[in-house]
Amino acid sequence: MAGEAVSAFVPGHVTGFFSVHEGDDPMSTGSRGGGITLADGVTVTVRAGERETYLEDTSAPIAPVERIREALDVDATVLVETSLPPGCGFGVSGAAALGTALAAAESFELEYSENELISLAHGAEVRAGTGLGDVVAQARGGVVLRTEPGAPGEGELDGIPARSTVEYLAMDELATADVIGGETDALSEFGQQSLQIVQSEPTMETFMRASRRFAREAELLTPDVIQAIQEANEAGGDAAMAMLGETVFCLGTGLTDASYDAERTAIDPAGATLLE
Amino acid sequence: MAGEAVSAFVPGHVTGFFSVHEGDDPMSTGSRGGGITLADGVTVTVRAGERETYLEDTSAPIAPVERIREALDVDATVLVETSLPPGCGFGVSGAAALGTALAAAESFELEYSENELISLAHGAEVRAGTGLGDVVAQARGGVVLRTEPGAPGEGELDGIPARSTVEYLAMDELATADVIGGETDALSEFGQQSLQIVQSEPTMETFMRASRRFAREAELLTPDVIQAIQEANEAGGDAAMAMLGETVFCLGTGLTDASYDAERTAIDPAGATLLE
Repeated sequence: MAGEAVSAFVPGHVTGFFSVHEGDDPMSTGSRGGGITLADGVTVTVRAGERETYLEDTSAPIAPVERIREALDVDATVLVETSLPPGCGFGVSGAAALGTALAAAESFELEYSENELISLAHGAEVRAGTGLGDVVAQARGGVVLRTEPGAPGEGELDGIPARSTVEYLAMDELATADVIGGETDALSEFGQQSLQIVQSEPTMETFMRASRRFAREAELLTPDVIQAIQEANEAGGDAAMAMLGETVFCLGTGLTDASYDAERTAIDPAGATLLE
Repeated sequence: MAGEAVSAFVPGHVTGFFSVHEGDDPMSTGSRGGGITLADGVTVTVRAGERETYLEDTSAPIAPVERIREALDVDATVLVETSLPPGCGFGVSGAAALGTALAAAESFELEYSENELISLAHGAEVRAGTGLGDVVAQARGGVVLRTEPGAPGEGELDGIPARSTVEYLAMDELATADVIGGETDALSEFGQQSLQIVQSEPTMETFMRASRRFAREAELLTPDVIQAIQEANEAGGDAAMAMLGETVFCLGTGLTDASYDAERTAIDPAGATLLE
């Protein structure tokens, strides 16, 4: 029955390094870079109803979600549930957008392919200024390298095969739009260098080292982030800063071993999926 | 420690329609088409040891697996475990190849990206003549449309978002090499038509109808397959023939509802993954 409740899960996504690429349209606009999708993510439920969006129990418009509902033109209520903090570099807005597209298409029996729905969500994020590369990574899952920017058909993806526990510590927000809306030439140059390093040696050790290099050279580190990365690494972890939040992510248990009150999850293996 | 036991899971894959594309090399050779990856699949375990391959308890060389071990040049024993019957259109050889590549790279700490390992497995299948499109679909998961043929970077994929129970009934083998090694022009023409139909209306109903059309026009149906498809559909299922086996697959429970002794699984949501 069209309009029945359908849920989709979309993994969180922490970006370690990136470069900004402005195309002629939202489909060719995006980012190159690298990130880790997380088993902690966002569950989006769509059902027939008022055109309202709820983040947990609170009515809260989410710009790319509103764009998708208008584009699909469905009378749908969207419920977004997550344990991840918004605004801290976990790709919550991208996950909400992609989950809305997937669940709404299934609920209302719309005839879209996966790439079309991913493209819709990517474009909504780009237009809203809330992200450039989370959606395509979240659709794929795993540790994702965005080797060419943009939506499916424009962009290209690769990945690093890896299994690992991941810890994360969100200390404060950073506004994505403030950074990617400003002067990004130098940042993008550093991001491309980090990507090349990882492509030439696609291992998790190299990925984390390239992520630390990027945060340092792009001058995005804060004193609290620097301290947490140092202490986690001294405790045997492998930590870096998540773009864009005052957030540290760590392979292994270095953050909790260093006595931080960090969350523990794992690399997401599957990417975005409809739930039964 | 290099050489420790590492396991990978790769979903089974039933193809509903396909066209053969001979490129200049194995990376650009492959198939267009559509198929469903299955939660029933193949688990491959790689560890340091004699260069032997075991299918369950039996030493059994698998051509693409042997090629991958030689290409990676690792002294590794490969154990392939599956409840799927080989030779019946479930992509067991492709799954064994991809699982071997993923698990061996992790076990021996080799520096390959996901696309490189998928390409290695795709090339090994093409060279061995055991498959043309299973590997790239199995790497992605879900219901996969192979819109351009070949390995990552050459080929292109899309998908149909779907959740469903899938039943399957394997009645006998068909030799892939006999069909894809012979005259394939007419078959490929029908396969491309089916793909176009599904791309213009990416729903599961259209996918199954296009699959039945392909099997009929390519004259691959057998009397037993025709009967099982008819009875499953009359029982409320949505069934077609798997390429290439004397095998029927069905969305929903139509095969068991029609009293066939069929296996029951679901669409695989994740694609190939390393196991913890």
